[in-house]
Amino acid sequence: MTAEQGLATAAINTWKLNLERANKLFLPLSDEELQQEIAPGKNRLVYLLGHLTAVHDRMLPLLVLGPRLYPEYDSLFLTNPDKSSELPGGAEIKKAWQQVNEALQAGFDRLAPGDWLHKHGSVSDEDFEKDPSRNRFSVLLSRTGHVAYHLGQAVLTRK
Amino acid sequence: MTAEQGLATAAINTWKLNLERANKLFLPLSDEELQQEIAPGKNRLVYLLGHLTAVHDRMLPLLVLGPRLYPEYDSLFLTNPDKSSELPGGAEIKKAWQQVNEALQAGFDRLAPGDWLHKHGSVSDEDFEKDPSRNRFSVLLSRTGHVAYHLGQAVLTRK
Repeated sequence: MTAEQGLATAAINTWKLNLERANKLFLPLSDEELQQEIAPGKNRLVYLLGHLTAVHDRMLPLLVLGPRLYPEYDSLFLTNPDKSSELPGGAEIKKAWQQVNEALQAGFDRLAPGDWLHKHGSVSDEDFEKDPSRNRFSVLLSRTGHVAYHLGQAVLTRK
Repeated sequence: MTAEQGLATAAINTWKLNLERANKLFLPLSDEELQQEIAPGKNRLVYLLGHLTAVHDRMLPLLVLGPRLYPEYDSLFLTNPDKSSELPGGAEIKKAWQQVNEALQAGFDRLAPGDWLHKHGSVSDEDFEKDPSRNRFSVLLSRTGHVAYHLGQAVLTRK
């Protein structure tokens, strides 16, 4: 394994580990349990799961892996706060969450280590030339942290 | 910049970004504000900051960068839960937090990209041969997620 393979593999493994933790926490929950707030007056678990799904769905074009699967999740879980929209049921959101993550993984599997350093889908050629850190790998690392951030919140309801 | 340099740099930048967010949240807080719980009956901010400091201090030997600076933080912030020990004041913990992170950064600056794939300090040669993913880079990525995890909790007190 080359150094670049080792580094890319470690980051993908850390991504997977965080998804496994999220799956373990969210997937067994009933619709009723998904209504729990992470703290009094804060987001409900159902909103967090939809929010993570929307953010991961946006990674498909951002990492230049393909079109979005659930663009309608933006208004439900991203641009509007919790308790402002009628949300899909837990089973539907869980299915979307799993489909989006499978599509991402299928895309990751097609990338060679060096491909991670290509520009991401929301930066112009000109801006990327000025700042080559605006690459796919930075997106992967940032979104891995985003899962961890909300896991830290979601876990407050579970113990 | 080689691919391995690009990948290692992106991970170090993501680490720094999370530290900057933590600094922005924790450093301006008074001792009184640090007493806030992230949710009713949960850890206080002062405990989270000490806990992050202890975990980062342990990274010094784990990444083979040098000896620990605050080993006494383990019993205060890691092996015992919040509200079981008398804790240092906020100024002291903030100073420790910053010193530990500076020592880590000085160590990172000495590493070549390929060095991140060397075994970390808590795995035997034999076990590392079986599982080369137990390397320094995995530790860096995992601990970056750990900061994000607790940031997601700490932020619940701030808005």
